Order: sequence, then structure tokens, then C-alpha cells
Amino acid sequence: MNPSVIREILKVTEKPGIISFAGGLPSPKTFPIEAFAAACATVLKTDGRAALQYAASEGYRPLCEWVARQLPWDVSPDQVLITTGSQQGLDLVAKVLIDEGSPVLVETPTYLGALQAFTPMEPSIVSVHSDADGIDVNDLEQKAAGARFLYVLPNFQNPTGRTMSEARRQALVDTARRIGLPIVEDNPYGDLWFDQPPPLPLTARHPEGAIYLGSFSKVLAPGLRLGYMVAPKAIMPKLLQAKQAADLHSPSFNQRMVAEVLKDGFLDRHVPTIRALYKHQCEVMLDALKKEMAGLDVQWNSPVGGMFLWARLPEGVSAVDLLPKAVDKGVAFVPGAAFYADGADPRTMRLSFVTASEEQIRIGIKALAAAIREACA
Amino acid sequence: MNPSVIREILKVTEKPGIISFAGGLPSPKTFPIEAFAAACATVLKTDGRAALQYAASEGYRPLCEWVARQLPWDVSPDQVLITTGSQQGLDLVAKVLIDEGSPVLVETPTYLGALQAFTPMEPSIVSVHSDADGIDVNDLEQKAAGARFLYVLPNFQNPTGRTMSEARRQALVDTARRIGLPIVEDNPYGDLWFDQPPPLPLTARHPEGAIYLGSFSKVLAPGLRLGYMVAPKAIMPKLLQAKQAADLHSPSFNQRMVAEVLKDGFLDRHVPTIRALYKHQCEVMLDALKKEMAGLDVQWNSPVGGMFLWARLPEGVSAVDLLPKAVDKGVAFVPGAAFYADGADPRTMRLSFVTASEEQIRIGIKALAAAIREACA
Repeated sequence: MNPSVIREILKVTEKPGIISFAGGLPSPKTFPIEAFAAACATVLKTDGRAALQYAASEGYRPLCEWVARQLPWDVSPDQVLITTGSQQGLDLVAKVLIDEGSPVLVETPTYLGALQAFTPMEPSIVSVHSDADGIDVNDLEQKAAGARFLYVLPNFQNPTGRTMSEARRQALVDTARRIGLPIVEDNPYGDLWFDQPPPLPLTARHPEGAIYLGSFSKVLAPGLRLGYMVAPKAIMPKLLQAKQAADLHSPSFNQRMVAEVLKDGFLDRHVPTIRALYKHQCEVMLDALKKEMAGLDVQWNSPVGGMFLWARLPEGVSAVDLLPKAVDKGVAFVPGAAFYADGADPRTMRLSFVTASEEQIRIGIKALAAAIREACA
Repeated sequence: MNPSVIREILKVTEKPGIISFAGGLPSPKTFPIEAFAAACATVLKTDGRAALQYAASEGYRPLCEWVARQLPWDVSPDQVLITTGSQQGLDLVAKVLIDEGSPVLVETPTYLGALQAFTPMEPSIVSVHSDADGIDVNDLEQKAAGARFLYVLPNFQNPTGRTMSEARRQALVDTARRIGLPIVEDNPYGDLWFDQPPPLPLTARHPEGAIYLGSFSKVLAPGLRLGYMVAPKAIMPKLLQAKQAADLHSPSFNQRMVAEVLKDGFLDRHVPTIRALYKHQCEVMLDALKKEMAGLDVQWNSPVGGMFLWARLPEGVSAVDLLPKAVDKGVAFVPGAAFYADGADPRTMRLSFVTASEEQIRIGIKALAAAIREACA
């Protein structure tokens, strides 16, 4: 795995004319620019000095309260820590829970950014077998001895788009509780369901044994870099200490801006428009795949939410080798190999259906099929 | 040293009625609220989608270019990395340069936030003797074997307010170059000089052997959490990788907002107003100290810029013990012991002269003197 893959991929996608299924970039159409403009003006007018000053590491209290209130289990605002994107939550978890050589369990495949965030603390990453329903609980239990935690992304996973089933969640929580394995649950995409909400988070079932990471990047905008973590009270002082050392606090201005936008149930009106858009774009991509990949031994899944789907190339075709050829044809994706701690399946790739437009999706999948066809020839 | 001192202190200062010389909070009077309001509106109107989207880890290119342009030595924008406050620069330096047990050299005393940022990587902190002119270069050389770097804050240091002399800077750079000791130079306060700019930064004299950290917190506002680091090109890929893992990138919205405000030489007009205010407030505090501490064996220095001065209590009086008594009388400060890696001088304290108003400074120093008088009785 090359740890700079995401950064390099983001650079490729900035080339003019490239249709990118690579980055995990929300559709900019969904950004509520007018609501942000109004919120900026209000915050600077009514509370400008506090919004521009240093602040407590915990986060802006009304935002912590909002987070606690909207989660589907009993959470105190004192258990909420506002982070500089949910990515920072991974950094803080690593600093507090990992020592050099500590085993850390992850799904197969898993979010590359988590592996990168854990790396500075030099854990020993242990990949747990996973399938379309999520993590394999039997394999987990066999590998769990001495593990500091399990990192898991149950809803519309990055990179695979898969969702952990109700049965699997309950089995996982029962096992984690029984063997005393802490869970780090990452849920940046949970609100982006198409037809029905995913099953209840793991943390809601086992709050005393889990740390939960959430994000405003997918429901509002990533450019503000705001996320949050929810943790058992006993571990909050250590997380706060790590947070303070990392960047003192997340931007007070941005926290107030988001708290202002969130007032009066804004997300209840806004998020359904994102869901409808992404559902449609996913359908367009599935439709294009069906049409363009005809006759090719390419497989893919059908996510029920989120931003990504996962495809598998014909035998003998490596996604890493395919990428430059696809870019030559004007389309980019992330090779699946980037998301495995070890034992990568070289035929896999992640396709985002949310950044490109409907027309671009059709053109891009056609170009991708042409590249695959050439690679198979 | 209690690593949560700063956080707890910030909490005390939030109590209504407390006059705080504790926090390193810039005067909110200096925040250019109207310029920010105009910049927010412009950015969201002309470039809203990019400002709210994910972005490259390096930072917003026009802001990197601005940083490179205004530094007094030859810097390429490719050597600039925008950070989430300069505090994050310390976190990234720690991740890239420190291994468990690595010796790291610091001044005596030094910035507490740096010690906290280095801690997760478990360095062995080595305190180098320092005096009113800055770090003792002979002591440095004796202790430098195997050190990963020297962390140093030459201008209006936090916590002491002292400034490293021209002669000491040149001797330090000559020695560092000769023995191959990397320098991490932190310069958040350099623009806040009273009568004349401080001597040239260490990095300007030895750019290939130093990492330089700068901040927008003291010249614009800390609540945006924006700083930058300048590093030799060879180390940039590792710093970028650490940056990406930490929080992907600093808020794209804030970076564009600041770039917009900085256009047309805004700081050339704005910073002189901050300098004049802080110089006056420093004079008020020095004047109040002279008046109120009469007859007490209290010593203090006279900074030529920045936000802090450093005082030393009479023999037998501990600043840690004094703090709750001072808070009872309505005034807060930071005990100097918080800023020593080891061998703390318990009689020292840091006083900020920038957050409180002129009237509050007079009242607060009077209350502090009363607390000291009681402690001596």
C-alpha cells in the first residue's frame, strides 16, 4: 500500500477533463451556500469576538448539545468532542489507545485514511475477514487477543459501500462485550441512506464499550472540517488532552456557523435532497455498468446508501495497472489495493457515484469499460 | 507538570468577574470582524463550491504563495504547508521527527503546548539552560548528541516574553550547522514588536536545516485555526503525509477567507494597530507592577514585543500555591512551573498583558499584589 495514494489521486482528479469516480468528494451541488452565507453574517454580527477567539478544546457547547440530542441513544454533551473532521477523531483515538506494536483489528478492506491515521503510533494492523454483511465475527474472536480496539465502518462502508446487517451488528456487539474488545465505530455516511435508515449503530447497543465518530462533511460540507466523537466519560480527559495538543480546538468560527445553520431542523429539510440525488446517481451508475460492462467478467455490488460502490475486474486484470490506462481515456477510480492492510485483492476498485454528474457517469463508465476491454485483449 | 494546566486555566478564565492574565488570548478588540464579514460574503459568492469542498493537504495555493512572498528569505510556495493553527505544526513535526525515546532539546522554560504536542511520540525532553538573551549555546552543544531537533521560540517567547539577541541567534545557527542539529523555530509572535522588529529568524540564516512555524492567530484571529509551516523540500512529503492523516487538510473555507482578507496589504495597515495597543498595555502592566509590588521582592522583565511578561515571586512563595488565592481575589495567571520540562522554578509566573483592558490590568495587578502580600505574611 502506498500511503500517499489518496493525495495523489486527488491531484489526478484536479486535471481538467478527467471524470473522477476516485475521490470521496460530496456533490458540490448539495452544499447549502446561501444558508452558510446567512450564518456567517449572523455569527460575525452577533457573536464575532467569541467566534474569532481561542476556545475550549471540547468544542462549542451548543454544537455538542446538538450532537448529543440527535443521536439515537442516551448521550450527554459532556461525552461529545468536536473534531477537525472525523479524520481527526482517528488521529486522537490512535494517540490515546495505540502503543507501538499494539494489535488493532480492521475490516477487509477498510478505510485507507484510518490506516494512515493509526500509522504514526505504529500499531500491528490485523485484518479481519469480512463479507457483504460486514465483519466476520468468528474470525474476529480468533484474532482479538490483546487487540486495543476494532475499527469498523458499518454504514455504506468506505471503500466497499456495504452495510453491516442487523444480525451481524448484534453478534459483533455481543462478542465485543463478552471478550472486552473496545469498538471504534466510524459513521460519516449513515445519514445518506436511499430508501430506509440502516440498523442502529453499534455504539447505541454498547455505549460503554465504544467510541463513535461522526461528521458534518457529508450532510453539510467537508470544507469546514468539522466532525465529532462520542466516547465513554472515563476516556474523555485523555481524548481532550490529545485534542488540545493536536490543534488546541477546532475552529470556533466554523463551529458557530454550523450550529447556526443547524438551528430549526435544517438537516431535516436538507438531507433528503442529498439522499434523493445520491440514490439517483447510484442508479445511473448501476445502469451504466450493466450496459457498458456487458460481455466482460466485471462484478459490482448495489449499495443501499452512501457514496461508493465496489467493483471487481476480470481475472488477470489489476486495478493498479488499469488506472493509468483509464486516466488516458479520461476516467479515474481508486484501486482497491489501497484499502487493504495486507492480502489485497488486486482486481478490486472503488467507484464514487456522487461527484460526477449523471452525464459524466455515463461517459466515464463507458470509458472505463473501453479501458478494461483493452486490458483483457 | 500537569499537562492539562492550559485547559483548566482557560476554564477558570471563563468564570465571570475573573481578570485573567493567564490565557494567551489576543485582544478581541483587534479582530477585523468587518473585513472577515466582507471576505466570507465574497468567498461564498465567487468560489463557494470550492471553498466548501475537500481540498489538497498542502493548502490553498494563493495562501501558500502569500506566505512564501512575505517571509524575509527565499521560500518557494512548495515549501509551505498550511496547518490547523501553528499548534498542528508541532504535532506534525513530532510525528515525522520523533521516535520513542528520541532526545529533543527545548529552552528553559519553553512553550507548554509544544511539550504536549511532542508527548504522544514519547521523546526524551532535554532542557537547555537559557537566560534573558535566549538559549545557552555552550550548554546546547554539550547536550546535543543524538538529539532529533532543538525546539526554540526566539521572538517574545511564550512563556517568558524574552527575545533572543542577534549575537545569540548567529552563534546558535553556526553551532547547529556545525553539529548537524535540526532547528524547529516557532514564531507566532514575531510581528508583534513594539518599537523595532526582532533580529532575522534562525531559519532565514539556515533554511536547509530548519523548520519554521508561523500563525495567523496573533495578526488576524485564532478562532479560524490557521497557521503554516515552512520546511526544506526533502522533508515535505513526510510532513504532507502526516498532515493528511491528521485532518486531511485545514478548512478550505477559512483559507480562502484569510487569503481574501490579506489581499491589498491588509496586514500593513492592521498589524501596526495591534502593536500600538499591546505596547501600551505592556506599559500599563509594567507601571502597575512598579506601583503595586513596591516593598515586595517581586521581579519581572520588560518585553520588547509579544503578549507576555515573566515575573518571579519572593523567596518561599510558590506560584502554584498562590494561584487559588489570587483567583479568590479575582485575578488569574499561569504558574511558571507549567512551562518547565524539569527543574521548574516554583517562584515564576507568566502574565499576559493583552487580553485584559487597561483598567482591568490596574485592578488585577493590585489584587495580585494583595495575594502575594498575604502569602508573604
